[in-house]
Order: sequence, then structure tokens, then C-alpha cells
Amino acid sequence: MPSTHTITRRVEFSETDLAGIMHFSNFFRYMESAEHDFYRRLGLKLVTECADGSSIGWPRVSATCDYKRPLKFQDEVDVTLKVAKKTEKAITYEFSFTKKGEADEAAHGALTVVCCSFRGGRVQATLIPKEFDEKIEIAV
Amino acid sequence: MPSTHTITRRVEFSETDLAGIMHFSNFFRYMESAEHDFYRRLGLKLVTECADGSSIGWPRVSATCDYKRPLKFQDEVDVTLKVAKKTEKAITYEFSFTKKGEADEAAHGALTVVCCSFRGGRVQATLIPKEFDEKIEIAV
Amino acid sequence: MPSTHTITRRVEFSETDLAGIMHFSNFFRYMESAEHDFYRRLGLKLVTECADGSSIGWPRVSATCDYKRPLKFQDEVDVTLKVAKKTEKAITYEFSFTKKGEADEAAHGALTVVCCSFRGGRVQATLIPKEFDEKIEIAV
Amino acid sequence: MPSTHTITRRVEFSETDLAGIMHFSNFFRYMESAEHDFYRRLGLKLVTECADGSSIGWPRVSATCDYKRPLKFQDEVDVTLKVAKKTEKAITYEFSFTKKGEADEAAHGALTVVCCSFRGGRVQATLIPKEFDEKIEIAV
Repeated sequence: MPSTHTITRRVEFSETDLAGIMHFSNFFRYMESAEHDFYRRLGLKLVTECADGSSIGWPRVSATCDYKRPLKFQDEVDVTLKVAKKTEKAITYEFSFTKKGEADEAAHGALTVVCCSFRGGRVQATLIPKEFDEKIEIAV
Repeated sequence: MPSTHTITRRVEFSETDLAGIMHFSNFFRYMESAEHDFYRRLGLKLVTECADGSSIGWPRVSATCDYKRPLKFQDEVDVTLKVAKKTEKAITYEFSFTKKGEADEAAHGALTVVCCSFRGGRVQATLIPKEFDEKIEIAV
Repeated sequence: MPSTHTITRRVEFSETDLAGIMHFSNFFRYMESAEHDFYRRLGLKLVTECADGSSIGWPRVSATCDYKRPLKFQDEVDVTLKVAKKTEKAITYEFSFTKKGEADEAAHGALTVVCCSFRGGRVQATLIPKEFDEKIEIAV
Repeated sequence: MPSTHTITRRVEFSETDLAGIMHFSNFFRYMESAEHDFYRRLGLKLVTECADGSSIGWPRVSATCDYKRPLKFQDEVDVTLKVAKKTEKAITYEFSFTKKGEADEAAHGALTVVCCSFRGGRVQATLIPKEFDEKIEIAV
């Protein structure tokens, strides 16, 4: 089962700021894109509608990023997700940002997401569904 | 009844781009903020839940903006909404962007929004509800 | 010489709003991405540094979009640029948004960009450089 | 000397996502807005141009956020900055997000910014300028 996944992005003009580099908040959007693309590759739906009318989703409870080298307009960057931790109800993904052709990381981040049941406005942490649990494995 | 409404914004760092000015797409976010603040001032809710389980909302069908003078980081700008046109099912708002202390407009835009009924995934244009119709008047 | 160019995008979670569809301001970011990718394909740089210390760029003076069908999370959409008009100093691009597998447009927009010289804070409209003029042709 | 600073924001429509809550990346934009407003209050400029042609700025090297309670469209939220740590070249700010009328935090974050000298494309960590050092004090 896969424990890593890489997407490639090209920094867009609208993602830069007046310092001429990608705004630091956009690294979090890239992390989420890698996470969602990982689910698509595994055939998993981000939101699962349940038979009882509730649905299962994955709110973030923690997000972190360390910035090492700036990304600039048009830079191509690999964002590599790694499953770092998995508990009964939560998953922590780590993300490595590397500019094409460079060996050193541009940034390193993490997202912790919690499996939650949504029913009529109420949100409650719940066990990770079997199909997620089977397909998502901690990286060695 | 009011036909105009002004909000004041200060351009944020994350709204600029590498050209050192507010990214052109953000003018549309400012227009929408002025529109929503106008509804709040009138005591109108953006989304109205109806007794029959449907809801009333206002999708945009058209957006335009002419850019005349750039806005920079920390610039304070007045965004003035004017009710330009109202039909049975749609409203067109015009927006004037003026930097504090300047006479000339920085930009001029418009949004046309259509009153729609949402019911289980179906969206259909519908008559503007009475309370909106009574409170929103075309500017002279 | 090319007069059209298509990019494909997948709507991201962070691009949606609480109505469950892509926020209308993001269509303008997609248009700009198609424009910049068009320049890359033509071997043209978005910002040209000149020998005399000035630089050539392309501020937007007008942006419009008509919205016909909403785009949702994970929708794949083709954004097709067409060179609609070219004068001595300005170019107008039209953009057609089409969801994969659908015949009807989801949206139709336009950007007018003006060729400008930037020198020490001063911005002035200027003739389109020869290499842009030769490579960018009005669509029939 | 001040060690804390609070700004108030109202969650905008364009800041929400299809889950109906403020997208997690936008909390970082709010933190930065509080930081920049703090500098304005202290009479400090975000970017300082130096006599020798270089400039002083504050790139972020780390950003974190823990999410506890979602923020929704139109929620009014206080974002309170606290100077948590100061070294010769870096400052760490903590941020508490509290929805108006609620006692519990909605989120808690931090940014670490490093004082850097920018000269012709080169960026180098440098001592915090005297006027920043004198005006920014660690919270007790």
C-alpha cells in the first residue's frame, strides 16, 4: 500500500507577493492538494456519504511549515506527501517541497487530519473507515 | 431606502503580487465584501432558508472590472457600491474603488447577481423576495 | 503563429466557497494562468528586462467574466485562450471554460492587457515589443 | 512597550470553503495581518530601505496553527498577537483566535520571522534594527 505521493506544481503569479516569492500561506494549499490527490489515486473520496444520512470528512487540527528557500514565480516544485503517523482517528502527513533540479528542500510541512462524522451540524471524531485504514499505511 | 454603501479596506500583504500591487482578482473579492456588508446593513441575510426546505441565494452571472490606478500594500481604499439596475430576478451593482485622499478612481467594477432557489442540487432563477425588493432601490 | 492555447485545471478544495462551487474570483486566476502558459509556450518572458534599466510588463486594464454553469471541487476544466484583439499597445484575450466531457461553456471571460514600460516607479504604455508582436496573432 | 496587539476580522465569503468554514490556510493570512498592524501601531515600517541601497525585511521561517473550533462566514473574530520570543535576529509571535462572545479559542498559531538584509537578490539574516528591538518586547 502506498505511503508516499508526489504532485508537481508551478508557482503562479497570483500566488506570489510583493517580496517576489510565493506567499507563505500558499504552501498549505499545496499540501492539501497533495493530500487530496493522494486520496484520488487510492480511489478514496474526500467526503463519504453514509447510509444513515451522516457523512465522513477530514478536518485539519494542526498545520505547520518550515520555510528554507523561497519559491518564485514559475518555479516547478515537487510536493511529496509521506504518511508519518496514523492513530485510530487521525492521520499525520508530512510534506517535502523541492524545487525541480535542486537537492535541498525549499520547505517542510505537516498536516494532522482527524476523521469526523458530520450529522446535522454536529461534528464528532470517529474511527477511520476501513477502506481508508486499509489503503493508507505509515511510511517506513 | 439605501442605494449606495461604502466599505473601507486596507490592502494586505497577501493580496499583493510580485509586481508590488494588489492582484487584479482581489478587486472582485472586495466588491463581494461590499455587497455582503450592504445586506448586513439592511438586515438581510445572504442565504434565506425557506419553509419548504429550499433556500434562496444570489449566484453571480457576470463580473467586470476596469483598472485605472494600482493599489499598493497598506493603501486604504473606499469601495462604494451603487445599485445600478434591478429586474424581477436580478440586481446589478456597480463599484467604485477610490484610494483615501485621491479624487480619481483606482478601479470601477460591476457584479450582476441573480436570485435563485436551491432545492436538492437544483438551482432555478426566481423572483426577488419581497424584503429584498423593498429594501434595495436603484440609485438615482 | 498560434492564436489559441488551452490549459487544464482541476478545481481545488481551497478554491471553493461555502456554496460548494468555485469562487467566482478564481476564474480570473485561471485566465491569467492560461495567459502566462501561452507566453511560456511561445518562449516569451512575462517580464522583459531592457538594456536601459527599464522593464516591460503587461498590467491588466480590464477583466470580465460571464458565469453559466458552476464548477465544483475536483472538476476538470479546460481553459482556452483566444487572441481576440491586438492594437499597437494592447492585447485582448478571450477565455472559454469548459468542464471535461461537457459541450456547453461553464464560463466565458476576457482580459485586456497593456504593454507598459516600468522605470523607477513610473509606468507608461508603450509599443508591443517586436517578438511579442510577431508571435501573437489574432484568431480568425 | 507593547507586547500584545489585537485586530478584529469578519470572515468573508471568499475565505470559506465547501465545508462551510474558513479555509485553514486563511488563518495564516490573519496572523500576518495582525503582525503588520502591530508594526503600523508601533510606527515601524515592514520594509526598511537602508542608506547603502540594501533593505531590511522579515521573511517567515516557521508557521504553525492548531485548529480547535471552526470559524464560519460572517463570524467576528479577535486575533491577538503576543510577542513570545525574541533573539538577536528573530522574533516569534503567538496568535490567539477567539470568536466574539466565546471564551474558548478557535485556533492558536505562531509565526517565527527572521530579520534579513536584502541586497541585489542576496538575502542574509541580520541583527534586528534598534528601533524594532526597542519597541518590541517579549510578553510577560
